[in-house]
Amino acid sequence: MKVLVIGAAGMVGRKLTAALLAEGHVGGRAIGSLVLADVVAPEAPASAITVTTAAADLSAPEVAGQLVADRPDLIFHLAAIVSGEAEADFEKGYRINLDGTRHLLEAIRLAGQTTPYWPRLVFTSSIAVFGEPLPEVIGDTQHHTPLTSYGTQKAICELLLSDYSRRGFVDGVGIRLPTIVVRPGKPNKAASGFFSGIIREPLAGQEAILPVADSVRHWFASPRAAVGFLLHAASLDTALLGNQRNLTMPGLAATVGEEIAALGRIAGAKATALIRRVPDLVIADIVAGWPKAFEASRAKTLGFRGDSSFDEIIGIHVEDELGGRIG
Amino acid sequence: MKVLVIGAAGMVGRKLTAALLAEGHVGGRAIGSLVLADVVAPEAPASAITVTTAAADLSAPEVAGQLVADRPDLIFHLAAIVSGEAEADFEKGYRINLDGTRHLLEAIRLAGQTTPYWPRLVFTSSIAVFGEPLPEVIGDTQHHTPLTSYGTQKAICELLLSDYSRRGFVDGVGIRLPTIVVRPGKPNKAASGFFSGIIREPLAGQEAILPVADSVRHWFASPRAAVGFLLHAASLDTALLGNQRNLTMPGLAATVGEEIAALGRIAGAKATALIRRVPDLVIADIVAGWPKAFEASRAKTLGFRGDSSFDEIIGIHVEDELGGRIG
Repeated sequence: MKVLVIGAAGMVGRKLTAALLAEGHVGGRAIGSLVLADVVAPEAPASAITVTTAAADLSAPEVAGQLVADRPDLIFHLAAIVSGEAEADFEKGYRINLDGTRHLLEAIRLAGQTTPYWPRLVFTSSIAVFGEPLPEVIGDTQHHTPLTSYGTQKAICELLLSDYSRRGFVDGVGIRLPTIVVRPGKPNKAASGFFSGIIREPLAGQEAILPVADSVRHWFASPRAAVGFLLHAASLDTALLGNQRNLTMPGLAATVGEEIAALGRIAGAKATALIRRVPDLVIADIVAGWPKAFEASRAKTLGFRGDSSFDEIIGIHVEDELGGRIG
Repeated sequence: MKVLVIGAAGMVGRKLTAALLAEGHVGGRAIGSLVLADVVAPEAPASAITVTTAAADLSAPEVAGQLVADRPDLIFHLAAIVSGEAEADFEKGYRINLDGTRHLLEAIRLAGQTTPYWPRLVFTSSIAVFGEPLPEVIGDTQHHTPLTSYGTQKAICELLLSDYSRRGFVDGVGIRLPTIVVRPGKPNKAASGFFSGIIREPLAGQEAILPVADSVRHWFASPRAAVGFLLHAASLDTALLGNQRNLTMPGLAATVGEEIAALGRIAGAKATALIRRVPDLVIADIVAGWPKAFEASRAKTLGFRGDSSFDEIIGIHVEDELGGRIG
């Protein structure tokens, strides 16, 4: 089977690539070749499987056609600019997050007009399609009320994915990822950055800033769970989805206080003492509009599995990023 | 005030034009000029108000910019190809119903980059953004589950309208029109055509075909009510809408049997005898997936008013189309 990963250089893309190459198969089908695409060509990991890399900007209309010319059987579309950037640069957000996805869907549809072609397309959507007012626990039939251009773009792509799938042009599955914690690497300026920072920095012996109250509740998944969602979506029986091709993934609901308690259990009081509370009303206000928890019943019934506790999420970070060592 | 109507040659567009010219003002502001645009230039009615007509295909990227160059204060965007055509011609549907609307939104945004510009934009969406499974009575927070490309395109335009409004580029109001009855003119091939046909043809002494059961329930508004919705949306205080710029209009829920009973009360048994029951399973199947009734609480609270009975709907047809005379 031929596999294409678009957005392969990002954090989730790199972890997905590693998992694909380590497993060597998806849903029982051996991976014959893997193409890794991103705006800047990703590094090709050493592997027994043929790995090709490509510098590809989906927002250029002809690029999607080049990527699907080899008719991949399975396509992961992870490429997007993040929420903050899509809000700061309106045109770029629509060009990449909306037009890029549409070019890909169109390239797949047009490829199928000469010879039958019906690839599985796994698209990463986001819980940013939802915004206040929201119930405490959000069901699977919650209507889309995005409060950002990023969330709007993801919601539109969900609708396109369902329509192109209904028409038989593609076999699409959209998965709404929870906020990924613990993100490895340096602190960034995303409003959600502190959810990872208050775990990652103390584990590395560094101070972390907490800009919101301990009572703030949000919806999380580890990078390992996110890769698991992607792989499950790649081999799922899509006949079970009907016309609704997009699914909220089963994350873990936790408060900041619960995050800190888990950190204490794993790394002790010297770690939690490194968290400095510096209230930031701007960030608090943004975060107040975010979803707190979901039912995710459809996804669970379909076999998607999330993390079981915040202790497990921290343990995954320690194992995958810190070589099992703390501080 | 300058007013622009895009899609002015259609049934609703013509009735809206007549109402605008008859009233001479919208929301207390006098209409100084009116531009009527459609794919084929509409006829300019005789009027004391300056009326200009334009042949304009919104799917051509440069056309929207030409239409907003004169900076209309109020824009009605009614232009779309219908459900059946958007399903039959996938590319045309997306080009006109999605790209056309996006070109218009972009032209408005770009016009505002030189000098402040914040026109009211009234967009006609559709109850086709909803599809089975649906509750018997659909609330205002029902999630979008379109079962057609047309419904998908309208749902996407709703999301764009909300985002462009949230960003301050336009002052948008999207209204989800019920199925309009009684449509004047000849029978057409739309799956919903019989809802009008079983009233219109008997009133004209003609036979009408009824392809579904008398128990089929659906959601209706008269052309006069539809024009009322548009005019109210044009002058509504949009601060009351928050970030959710799209509203389900208050239609009237009625079964086919209730339609026929109303026809009997108004035109007698000789009219209802002209309805011939010829079951069509294809049409019955399409119609079974359609919404049956809505709460429309938000719209009612905001002052939108629908028809009060099917007798009233038939009465409006007799008055506006038949000169008050029953065939």
